[in-house]
Amino acid sequence: MALEFAAPIARLIDELMKMPTVGPKSAARLAFYVLGASRDDAQRLAAAILEVKEKIRPCRTCFNLAEGEVCPVCTDPLRDARQICVVADARDVVALERAREFRGRYHVLGGLISPMDGVGPDNLTVGALTDRVAAEQVEEIILATDSTVSGETTALYLTKVLKPLGVRLSRLAYGLPHGMNLEYADEVTLARSLQGRRPVE
Amino acid sequence: MALEFAAPIARLIDELMKMPTVGPKSAARLAFYVLGASRDDAQRLAAAILEVKEKIRPCRTCFNLAEGEVCPVCTDPLRDARQICVVADARDVVALERAREFRGRYHVLGGLISPMDGVGPDNLTVGALTDRVAAEQVEEIILATDSTVSGETTALYLTKVLKPLGVRLSRLAYGLPHGMNLEYADEVTLARSLQGRRPVE
Repeated sequence: MALEFAAPIARLIDELMKMPTVGPKSAARLAFYVLGASRDDAQRLAAAILEVKEKIRPCRTCFNLAEGEVCPVCTDPLRDARQICVVADARDVVALERAREFRGRYHVLGGLISPMDGVGPDNLTVGALTDRVAAEQVEEIILATDSTVSGETTALYLTKVLKPLGVRLSRLAYGLPHGMNLEYADEVTLARSLQGRRPVE
Repeated sequence: MALEFAAPIARLIDELMKMPTVGPKSAARLAFYVLGASRDDAQRLAAAILEVKEKIRPCRTCFNLAEGEVCPVCTDPLRDARQICVVADARDVVALERAREFRGRYHVLGGLISPMDGVGPDNLTVGALTDRVAAEQVEEIILATDSTVSGETTALYLTKVLKPLGVRLSRLAYGLPHGMNLEYADEVTLARSLQGRRPVE
């Protein structure tokens, strides 16, 4: 606990430092924001923190974040139930929704297979995914896991499990990110962008 | 409000984005921390925010942050009351306390003179400072304002006001920061480090 601060400020800084990428200096800066903020703003912030913990649950169907039983994507009748995009966590849903390209539904695994961290398929929502494929009229599953060792491992495992169910499987394209200069791209990205090259029409 | 998020999450992100240097992406990252945190941790964070607003007040004497009437520095009998270090705000007290060099007391102005922003001497705690000089046995006042136009203006103004009171005035040394290569220093810093050069003993 930082000695220079009065106890309530030090406590707030300690709590803020539990957040990702928030070190002592950022935490102090944020604490000073709270000190300088209006009482209303501080109360709204505290209330918003508590409300999120109270109201947000995993969607019963896809494990995306939901206010209530079912998430907005699963509730939306315009979303195509024949396509399921499988992602590691709810943050990935947000990122993909921002791209405004996918009109199907999601399935949130709740992590990626990582034997080093003791995460196996049983710790993820794989069973619920195979149940969905059996129960719903799913035609295509897009494996949208990270381009990392855990992401690849998980995609491989899901391929093995889902293939026998007769559903079409696809994987996100991996290659040069938008706006990147070729000379700055790493070898793996370049190799993948070559492997995934497409004919010019 | 971000459409991709359930309303409580969007509200939390909006509140978090009011904080300095927190943009939409950082706010989302912090909100996801809250979502993933234990209920206890979220409650502790919310409570710490409210506690700070409730309990922290400006010190009656020096306007530093205080839990109660008087701040820890003013309460400490070991701090030398003959020296007052004048700073713009309570953050500067924290920075100076970290340096563990100053053993006197502080005076927090509550800002710097800045006609552009409509801040004049009357908006600062200058009156309380001159009262302290008259009432306490102050021997030296260290003007520790920023090395900026507002900081200089404020230091000049305070010099004009305090000089007649017969108190010794000093100013922080300005020069090369610790660890900086001379070749990367800007012209003003170099000019000041030359002006402030000290004989080698």
